[in-house]
Amino acid sequence: MSLPWKRLIRFITTHGRTVRGEPILPTPTTDLGFITESDNLQARVIEGDDLYDTTGKTRVTDEIVSVKTILGPLTQADVPILRCVGLNYAKHVKEAGRTPPPFPFIFFKPNTTVHDHSAPVSIPQIAQDSQADYEGELCLVIGRDAKNVSTEDALSYVVAYTVGNDISARRLQRDPALAGRVPQWGFSKGFDTFAPLGPCLVAASEISDPSKLLLKTIVDGEVRQEEYVADLLFDCAYLVSYLSQGTTLQKGSVIMTGTPGGVGAGLSPPKYLVPGTQMDVVIDGIGTLRNGVAFD
Amino acid sequence: MSLPWKRLIRFITTHGRTVRGEPILPTPTTDLGFITESDNLQARVIEGDDLYDTTGKTRVTDEIVSVKTILGPLTQADVPILRCVGLNYAKHVKEAGRTPPPFPFIFFKPNTTVHDHSAPVSIPQIAQDSQADYEGELCLVIGRDAKNVSTEDALSYVVAYTVGNDISARRLQRDPALAGRVPQWGFSKGFDTFAPLGPCLVAASEISDPSKLLLKTIVDGEVRQEEYVADLLFDCAYLVSYLSQGTTLQKGSVIMTGTPGGVGAGLSPPKYLVPGTQMDVVIDGIGTLRNGVAFD
Repeated sequence: MSLPWKRLIRFITTHGRTVRGEPILPTPTTDLGFITESDNLQARVIEGDDLYDTTGKTRVTDEIVSVKTILGPLTQADVPILRCVGLNYAKHVKEAGRTPPPFPFIFFKPNTTVHDHSAPVSIPQIAQDSQADYEGELCLVIGRDAKNVSTEDALSYVVAYTVGNDISARRLQRDPALAGRVPQWGFSKGFDTFAPLGPCLVAASEISDPSKLLLKTIVDGEVRQEEYVADLLFDCAYLVSYLSQGTTLQKGSVIMTGTPGGVGAGLSPPKYLVPGTQMDVVIDGIGTLRNGVAFD
Repeated sequence: MSLPWKRLIRFITTHGRTVRGEPILPTPTTDLGFITESDNLQARVIEGDDLYDTTGKTRVTDEIVSVKTILGPLTQADVPILRCVGLNYAKHVKEAGRTPPPFPFIFFKPNTTVHDHSAPVSIPQIAQDSQADYEGELCLVIGRDAKNVSTEDALSYVVAYTVGNDISARRLQRDPALAGRVPQWGFSKGFDTFAPLGPCLVAASEISDPSKLLLKTIVDGEVRQEEYVADLLFDCAYLVSYLSQGTTLQKGSVIMTGTPGGVGAGLSPPKYLVPGTQMDVVIDGIGTLRNGVAFD
C-alpha cells in the first residue's frame, strides 16, 4: 500500500481544533503558503497517529473541515532529529571561492528547533547582534528506519518532501571571538524556532525527480536565493545513502539538503534578520514557507 | 520530594527480565562496572515510566531480584539528544598548544548513538581505517526542561550523573581528504553505538561537587586519561546555563562535558580502536563504564 495522502497539512480549523488533513486544492497550483482564513480552504481530516503509515491504519476520512490557519506539518514530537548538509550547492561553493568538500558536510539540529509555518522565528538575546540569517532548503522526510542503504534504494526511504529554513547565527558559527578557532555548526543553528518547516508535506509519489525542483528564497520581497535542486553537489539519493552508513536514520527524521548562494551573510553589505523581516522559501510543487522574525 | 533512588541500573535478571532497579551495594565503594553474575548482586526493582519523577509515581519497590547482566541505565528512547562539549579541559588545550575557546564548543550526538555498558562498540566500515578513538567524559542528565537558566540555578536542573565515552572517527572528523577544509563534529561522532553510557545513574544528591570527581580512561590496562573534573574550562553549571540560552534542554537530555588529554589520536604514535580493544572509563563515585570494540 502507499500513503493515504498526497499533501498533508496541520492546521487550526475555523472551530478551533488543531488537526492534520489533506487539503482540497481549489486549483492544482494553489500555494498553501499563502492561504488565509478568507480563502475558506477545505480539508479532509486525517486520522491516525503514524503519519507515514501505509497499512491502512492512518486514513483520510470523509470529515471535511474549514482551514483557519495552516501550521507546520510536523511538531517536535514527529521529528527525532534533523540531519543537515552544509556547502552542498556547487555554484555557491564555486562563487565563494571554496573547494567542494570531498564528502557531505554533516551537522545536526535538535528537534527543539522545529517551528511552524507562518509563526515568527524567535532570535534569542545571545544572537541578536547582527548575525541571524536564513537558509532556504529542500527537506526530505524519512518514512522508515534506514541503515546502510545503497544509493539505488535510498529514495525508497524518502516518504515526503517539505520546505525548510535553516536559521543560523553567523557570529556564533564563524566569528573567532565567539566561536573560537574552529567554526561551530551546532549551537549557532540549534536555538528554539530555528527550523521552520512547511507549509505542507508532499508525498514522494508526487515528486518523480526532486532535482527538477526550483528553490527560491525571497526576503522582504527581494529574491535572494534561486537555484534548481539539480545544482546539489551531493544529490538526495547520495545523501540518504551516505547519512545511513553505520547510522540508523529513524523514521520521521528530516534531512535538510543544503542551501544555495545568496544568504544574508554573503551579500555586500551583509543583511541580517531583524524584527519584522519576512522570509519566504518557495519550492514549486510544495509551496511557500513563510516566517517573520521577532527578537526574544 | 526528591528522586526515589540514589543509584539506578538497568539490567537483565537471573530470570531473564530486563528491568531497572536500585542496586543493593555489598560495600559503599562497590564498582557496578565490574559486577558479573557470580557476584550475585541484588537490586530492588524500580516501577514507573518516568525515571526522573519526584512526585511519588515512580518508586523503588520491595521486590528484590538478582542481577545477571548490567546494561546501560538509559535507552535511546530515554534520551532526546546528547549535547556535547569539545576542547573543555584546560590542561589538554594548553598541552595541545591551542588557545582556549572563548565560549563552549558545542556539538550534538543523535540518540541513536546511545549504547549499553559492557556491549562492544561497533565501528562501521566507513570508519575502520585506523581512526576510531575513545573520549572518556563526565555526563550530566537533565531532569526537567531548562531554558535560559542562570549559572546559579543550573545545577538544580541536573538530576543525575553518569559516565560516557564519546567515540569519534578522527579521519572523518579532521582529515581534509575526508572531512574537507573544516573539521566535522557531526557525522564522525554520530554512528550507532558511539555513545556508551553507564554503568549506572547516580542521583545528583549524592554528588555535592562534581568538580571533585576524578576521571580516568584505561585502555587495555593502560591509563590514558586521568584528570579531575575541576580542570574543566567551562564547569558543569556554566555549561547547563550556556546550553540553555535560547534553547530548551529537554528532560532526559544528556550533556557530555568534554574529554581530558590522552586520547588515542594524541599519542605518539597514535593508537586507535581495533577489534578486541577494552575501554574502561572510570569516575570515582559513579563506577566504571567498560566497553569492547568490534568491527561491523
